[in-house]
Amino acid sequence: MSATHEHVIAKDLQSWIETPAGSDFPLQNIPFGIFRAPGRTPRACTRIGDTVVDLQVLAEAGLLAASGINKEAFHQATLNPMLAFGKAGVRRLRTTLCALLRDTNAELRDNTALRHNALVPLAQATMLLPVAIGDYTDFYSSREHATNVGTMFRGAENALMPNWLHLPVGYHGRSSSIVASGTPIRRPMGQMRPKPDEPPVFGASKQLDIELETAFITFGGKPLGQRITAAEAEDYIFGMVLFNDWSARDIQSWEYVPLGPFLGKNFGSSISPWVVTLDALEPFRAAGPAQDPQPLPYLQVPGPHGFNISLEATLQPKGGKESVICRTNFNYLYWSMAQQLAHHTVNGCNVRAGDLMASGTISGPAQDSFGSLLELTWRGTRPLKLRDGGERKFLEDGDTVVIRGHCGNNGLRIGFGEVRGEVLPAE
Amino acid sequence: MSATHEHVIAKDLQSWIETPAGSDFPLQNIPFGIFRAPGRTPRACTRIGDTVVDLQVLAEAGLLAASGINKEAFHQATLNPMLAFGKAGVRRLRTTLCALLRDTNAELRDNTALRHNALVPLAQATMLLPVAIGDYTDFYSSREHATNVGTMFRGAENALMPNWLHLPVGYHGRSSSIVASGTPIRRPMGQMRPKPDEPPVFGASKQLDIELETAFITFGGKPLGQRITAAEAEDYIFGMVLFNDWSARDIQSWEYVPLGPFLGKNFGSSISPWVVTLDALEPFRAAGPAQDPQPLPYLQVPGPHGFNISLEATLQPKGGKESVICRTNFNYLYWSMAQQLAHHTVNGCNVRAGDLMASGTISGPAQDSFGSLLELTWRGTRPLKLRDGGERKFLEDGDTVVIRGHCGNNGLRIGFGEVRGEVLPAE
Repeated sequence: MSATHEHVIAKDLQSWIETPAGSDFPLQNIPFGIFRAPGRTPRACTRIGDTVVDLQVLAEAGLLAASGINKEAFHQATLNPMLAFGKAGVRRLRTTLCALLRDTNAELRDNTALRHNALVPLAQATMLLPVAIGDYTDFYSSREHATNVGTMFRGAENALMPNWLHLPVGYHGRSSSIVASGTPIRRPMGQMRPKPDEPPVFGASKQLDIELETAFITFGGKPLGQRITAAEAEDYIFGMVLFNDWSARDIQSWEYVPLGPFLGKNFGSSISPWVVTLDALEPFRAAGPAQDPQPLPYLQVPGPHGFNISLEATLQPKGGKESVICRTNFNYLYWSMAQQLAHHTVNGCNVRAGDLMASGTISGPAQDSFGSLLELTWRGTRPLKLRDGGERKFLEDGDTVVIRGHCGNNGLRIGFGEVRGEVLPAE
Repeated sequence: MSATHEHVIAKDLQSWIETPAGSDFPLQNIPFGIFRAPGRTPRACTRIGDTVVDLQVLAEAGLLAASGINKEAFHQATLNPMLAFGKAGVRRLRTTLCALLRDTNAELRDNTALRHNALVPLAQATMLLPVAIGDYTDFYSSREHATNVGTMFRGAENALMPNWLHLPVGYHGRSSSIVASGTPIRRPMGQMRPKPDEPPVFGASKQLDIELETAFITFGGKPLGQRITAAEAEDYIFGMVLFNDWSARDIQSWEYVPLGPFLGKNFGSSISPWVVTLDALEPFRAAGPAQDPQPLPYLQVPGPHGFNISLEATLQPKGGKESVICRTNFNYLYWSMAQQLAHHTVNGCNVRAGDLMASGTISGPAQDSFGSLLELTWRGTRPLKLRDGGERKFLEDGDTVVIRGHCGNNGLRIGFGEVRGEVLPAE
């Protein structure tokens, strides 16, 4: 089981790399990503404060040998080769990096030439997709979100479907259109039926929305035909990212019966570039909502499996001010990642290194904690007021949406940075 | 446009490689696959009759240079590198192979050493997955199938959903669990609710089914944000395979509302190993069903875009006789592949080389043309009689299902071979 504090980096350790106050990326985080920079091919990295640490350079210098990970794994344009070393390998790598980067270690700190080569100011780096995503699954694990949507479309009496409290409902999404933070999202064209008594029409979506989510990335799982138990599940989870599941509500509502969302979703999804490991999040482990009825045994797992992660979404019109439109928390989710992964594989479905499994929209109980404009504006019936006087029912061209997330307690802050995307006009 | 006969290999040409009467694989087919054999790493091949032709050997000997495809593309364990050369490259390759393998060409025929190295009896070859599948989409394009299922679950009055005649309904499936023909399929465990008034239970699926489908494999498409028009669509299609979308109806019916099929499908899907190009199928092009109402302009494309492909499924109990349980035809499909691909990308969704798009269950009007046991037994209410006296509502452990498909007219036969899978007991 991974749920121990053995692999947590002690709170009082500090790096010799400057870490601004309030940074999401102190020495205790050590997230992983893929970057490119002038003169550097895409490669693996970690981050301390606002400094990118080039793992290819460190590996070539022999400084990562203790991790047991082949240096070639850090030369690649995806983290997938590193994931082949599993949770044990990534733990050794974080331990190795922590030792190398802490303030008392002079090995890299005082080697000026190597240090200059290994450290890249964040402003010079372009962050890319961290993994080649094989399959992408989206769950639907917020009870408040499912209830809100169900209430709007079917009435409060029938808000939750009969299966919802018994299993983590999920569906397969599109891997090819998942993009890194900063990639603009083009407003989709498509077929929709705005007037229920008239034929469908073709045009640009008029109900473009966000979904505030997180996602986890897997290590390689078991062969096809074997299940991962709920108790084992966290050993197969590499880490987490922020996720914006852009959604065209008008396309979605016309197409989705009976086989689920398709073109209303697969025009683009955005992820944050830094994968934060479960070990880094360990100090923020927390019990999620009580589950009643009790799930079937294959979904039961002792101990807390939620995480207290504060999340927010902001909306900034072109040339305008940024307004916070939602403040929510990962721990509102009814179904844990361990339960999601156990459910996903209970039928023998295989999981590969680099698969992405998203939470579904994360909504809390308060109206300002809803994770989509659909809910925040209650289907457009109560438009959202923005700080600079405008209002929104759905997204307009030129709007930039940013999702941020972090954990914090007793002076320790571990964060994800952000996932950002601007809406481009339809073409 | 690809809809010309320019790339069709003339019917009267013959190969110097023996082609048994009635073979699916005459010189006019030239399908592509990946095989391994004793002493050979996985690599690209084609097939004439019951002989596998090793493309790596031919490329190394310089015999495929006219195709313009790098010889390294044939050394790989997937066809994806070959697909990077697009429809034009694959056409040149088929032309090159046709010239080399026709009876009048002595170059390889009379080079005993090279010929022995290049030709492998089918019985010595193990066929693997032909491509690394990025994303897999399953459509739902048989009107008869959608009507049958809708009638069973919602009544004849509401059989077809309002969107069905306006767009090719589809959803995303799981790539990781798509396996090559011959791979056994383990009966899935899962959550289901056999008695609607009692809580759900966990156990082995009791309603394991097949879905007789075909699928097409794509070349690389356009960048994210750009659509492929219906008129262009066939230029982005590499070829077709047979597809068995194994389905656990009891798991599916409990889980699928509101986001679609998930664990009821993703425990395994099987494809036939030989990708038959659209050019090989060109002589069998045919108009599909008339479409009324007329689709929106983005789904309109002049000319016939169906193909007359005879399909059948058989069921063979362990140690028993093989019974044909379904005879149907690809051309029953209401929505063409060109329409499916145009719809899939109309919102800017990007398609990569090696993506797989399946037809959905192919059912015809006659009762014995239904492509699933669900329909053939009408939800188990009229069990299917087998040749050896047994009967089936759904699949039993040890059952082997085979789907076969071919086209034929005026003495020319182009086929797919088969996709085969045996049901293993749950574990």
